[in-house]
Amino acid sequence: MTNLNEQLHAARAAAQVIAAMGSEAKRALIHAMAQALADGRDAILTANARDVDAANEAKQNAALIDRLRLNPSRLDAVVAALNQIAELPDPVGEITHSEQRPNGLTVQRVRIPLGVVAMIYEARPNVTADAASLCLMAGNAVVLRGGSEALHSNLAIAAALHGALAAHGVPEAALTLITDTDRERIRELVQAQGLIDLVIPRGGEGLIRFVTDNARVPVIQHYKGVCHLFVDASADPALALKLLIDGKTTRPAVCNALETMLVHRDIAATFIPNAVVRLRALGVQVRGCPQTHAIYAGVVPANESDFGAEFLDRILAVRVVDDIDQAIAHIQQHGSDHTEVIATRDADAAERFIHGLRSAVVMVNASSRFSDGGELGLGAEIGISTSRVHAYGPMGLAALTIERWVVRGEGQVRHG
Amino acid sequence: MTNLNEQLHAARAAAQVIAAMGSEAKRALIHAMAQALADGRDAILTANARDVDAANEAKQNAALIDRLRLNPSRLDAVVAALNQIAELPDPVGEITHSEQRPNGLTVQRVRIPLGVVAMIYEARPNVTADAASLCLMAGNAVVLRGGSEALHSNLAIAAALHGALAAHGVPEAALTLITDTDRERIRELVQAQGLIDLVIPRGGEGLIRFVTDNARVPVIQHYKGVCHLFVDASADPALALKLLIDGKTTRPAVCNALETMLVHRDIAATFIPNAVVRLRALGVQVRGCPQTHAIYAGVVPANESDFGAEFLDRILAVRVVDDIDQAIAHIQQHGSDHTEVIATRDADAAERFIHGLRSAVVMVNASSRFSDGGELGLGAEIGISTSRVHAYGPMGLAALTIERWVVRGEGQVRHG
Repeated sequence: MTNLNEQLHAARAAAQVIAAMGSEAKRALIHAMAQALADGRDAILTANARDVDAANEAKQNAALIDRLRLNPSRLDAVVAALNQIAELPDPVGEITHSEQRPNGLTVQRVRIPLGVVAMIYEARPNVTADAASLCLMAGNAVVLRGGSEALHSNLAIAAALHGALAAHGVPEAALTLITDTDRERIRELVQAQGLIDLVIPRGGEGLIRFVTDNARVPVIQHYKGVCHLFVDASADPALALKLLIDGKTTRPAVCNALETMLVHRDIAATFIPNAVVRLRALGVQVRGCPQTHAIYAGVVPANESDFGAEFLDRILAVRVVDDIDQAIAHIQQHGSDHTEVIATRDADAAERFIHGLRSAVVMVNASSRFSDGGELGLGAEIGISTSRVHAYGPMGLAALTIERWVVRGEGQVRHG
Repeated sequence: MTNLNEQLHAARAAAQVIAAMGSEAKRALIHAMAQALADGRDAILTANARDVDAANEAKQNAALIDRLRLNPSRLDAVVAALNQIAELPDPVGEITHSEQRPNGLTVQRVRIPLGVVAMIYEARPNVTADAASLCLMAGNAVVLRGGSEALHSNLAIAAALHGALAAHGVPEAALTLITDTDRERIRELVQAQGLIDLVIPRGGEGLIRFVTDNARVPVIQHYKGVCHLFVDASADPALALKLLIDGKTTRPAVCNALETMLVHRDIAATFIPNAVVRLRALGVQVRGCPQTHAIYAGVVPANESDFGAEFLDRILAVRVVDDIDQAIAHIQQHGSDHTEVIATRDADAAERFIHGLRSAVVMVNASSRFSDGGELGLGAEIGISTSRVHAYGPMGLAALTIERWVVRGEGQVRHG
C-alpha cells in the first residue's frame, strides 16, 4: 500500500513538471523516447521473447500470444507512432472560447492537462509506449499497469523510455510502471482519489468491469464494439457489399468490425444471397434470422443471443427488418453505443438513422472500420469511450486535457 | 429495488422522447413549466410551510431552514430562472467540428444529450425546478433525489411540472422524483449502470463522498470551494481591497467566497492593516500567520488547519508570502481547485499565476464571486465541477451534452 501510494505521490509531483513544459520541449522528449526504443531494440525483443516463451509454456491462447509478441517490424511501427505523436498539434494552451462580458471581464476557456492519467491494460506491450507518449504529449504524468504476461517486455520498454526522460530532465515518475501484478494493486490504484485524475482501462470486459466496480476516481469506459450495418431499401447494393466485406473481414478481431447486419425487407431477397456467397468465400459464418434463412437456406439459424454478441471472429448475425424504425429499435436494444453504419441513397433515411441513434459514431455510406482516432483526424488514439461522459468515441490528445476558465478584469466586483 | 429499477427504465425510455424534441418544442415546454409553478404557487408554498414547520420542530439549524424556505419572491425568482433557461441557445445539434478527410469522408462532431442525468441534492427545493429544466432543455431525462427535509416541497413542485409535461405530450418519467428517502436508494441509483449516464451530487461533503464511494456510473464531483486571493507586490491596493471585500463579505456561505488571502511581503506592512480594519468593520474575523500578527497584533493567530478550511462564514485566513512562487505552492497544497484570484499590475506575474495553478477558474484583477455559470456567460449553472473530467468549473447546458461523431461518405472502405 505504502509503496503504491509513494509512487502515486511522486507521479503527482512529476505531473507539475510535465504540465509546465512547452510544446517544443515535449516534442523533443517524445522523439527522444522513440529513439530510445529504437536503440533499445535488442533488449526489448529479448525481454519480449521471455514473455512469449512463458505464455507458450502456460499454454495461453494463440490470440493472446499474438497480441503479446513484438518483432522488429512491430517495434518499428511503435517507433514511427511515437515520432508521429511528437508532431501532433499540442492541445495544451488552446483557447477554445473567448468573449468579453458586458461588465468588461474577458472570459476565456483554455485547455490544461488532466494531471495524472492511469492506463490499465492487458497483453499488448506497445500500449506501454503509445499511451505513455500520448499522455506526456498532452502534459500529463502517466501511471501504467500492464498485464503480468507482458511484464518483462514492459520493464524493458519503460527502461528505455526512462532513459529519454532522464536525458530531458523529466523525473522518472512522470512515467510510472506498476510492476506488482497482484490485482489488489488495481483496486488501490482506482481508489486513489486526489492522486489519479482519470483511469482508462483497455482490455477484456472482465478487466473493465473490475475497474468500474471498484473505482472512486473517474473512469473512461470502453466495454465493447457491437457495430451494425443497416442496408436500407434504397442502398446501392454494390456499395453496401463493399462496406460489409470491409467491416466484417479485414480485421474481425477489432472493436470497429461489424458484428450484425440488418437488411431492409424490400432489398433482402436480392441482397442477402449475394452477400452470403461473398462472405462464405471469405470464411465468414452467417447466422441468420428466420427470414434470412427463408431467403437463403444455407445460413446457420441465429439464436437471440447472436444479436448483440461481439464475436471478434469471422461470424456475422443477419436479420431482415421491416423498415428503418425497426432497424433503429434493434440497434437501441442490442447495440453497444460504439459505431453504426447505414448504406442508403435516401438522404431522409440517413438523417433519420443519425438522429434515431445515440451511438458514439454514426456513418452514412462509409465503413465502420473508419471508427478510429487516426482515421477520423485525431492523429492518434488513446482509447474509445462508449460512455457519454468526457469523451465519446475515439479519444485523441484533446481528451487527455480539460478546458478551464481564465478571467481577466480591471477590478470588477459583483456587489460594488 | 424493483420499484427504483422500473422507474429508471421508464426514465430511460422517456429520454428518447426528450432527445427527439426540437429546440422550439423544448422552449415551449420549459416556459409551460415556469407557468405551472406560478399557477401552483399556493400549493407549493403550503407544502413548503409543512417542510419548514417540521424542520423547526426537529430543531434543524437556521442555515438549513433558510435554504429550505420558499416565499413568494423566491418562487418568482425560480419562475424567472426557468423562463430564462427556455431562451438559452440549445446545445443539442451544435456542430463543434467539421472537416473533410483526404479520402473524401466528411467528419463532424455534433452535440447530443447525455441521456438520463441524476441529481442528488439536499435542502434547496428550487434545485428541483432549476435542475429539471436545465436537464430537459439539454434533451435529457432527469432523475431527482432531493433531501427528505424538502420532500413535500419537492412533491408539490414536481406535481406542477408534471402537469406541464403531460400538456406537452412528454412522459412524466422524463422528470422522475425519487420519494423514498432511504439512503439505500442513493446507493442503488448511483450503481444503475446502463440506466443513468451521469450523477451530479450537490450538497455537503458527506453526501458527495457517499456518492463517489458507491458510484458505478460517472459522477461530477464538487467537493468544496477554498478560494484564494493573492495580493501581489505590484497590486493596486484599492483594487485589491475591493476584490477582498466583495469576495469575503457579500455572500460568505457560497462556494465562490474567499477563504484565504495571501499577501506578498513587500506590500504586507501597508496593505494588511487597512484590510483588517475594513474586514473587522464588516464583522469578519481575521486569522493571521505569525507575520500577519507581527504587522497587526489584533488578529487571531491562525492554526495550520485554517489554511485550506472552507469557513463558509465571516472568517478569513491570512498569510504573508515571500513571493509569487510561495503563493502558488501554498494554493497547490491547500486549495480545492475551485477559484483563485491574483491582484497585480504586473502582466508577467499574472501569467505566472495562471500557468502555475490548475484550478478550474483563475482570475486576474476580478472578484472570485464571478466564478458562476451566469456571470461567466453560460446563462445558467447546473453545478460546479472540481474534478478535471468532462467539465471543470461552472457547468451550463453544454456540460449536459456530449460530442459524438457523424461521418458521411460515398462508399469509402479502409482496405478497398
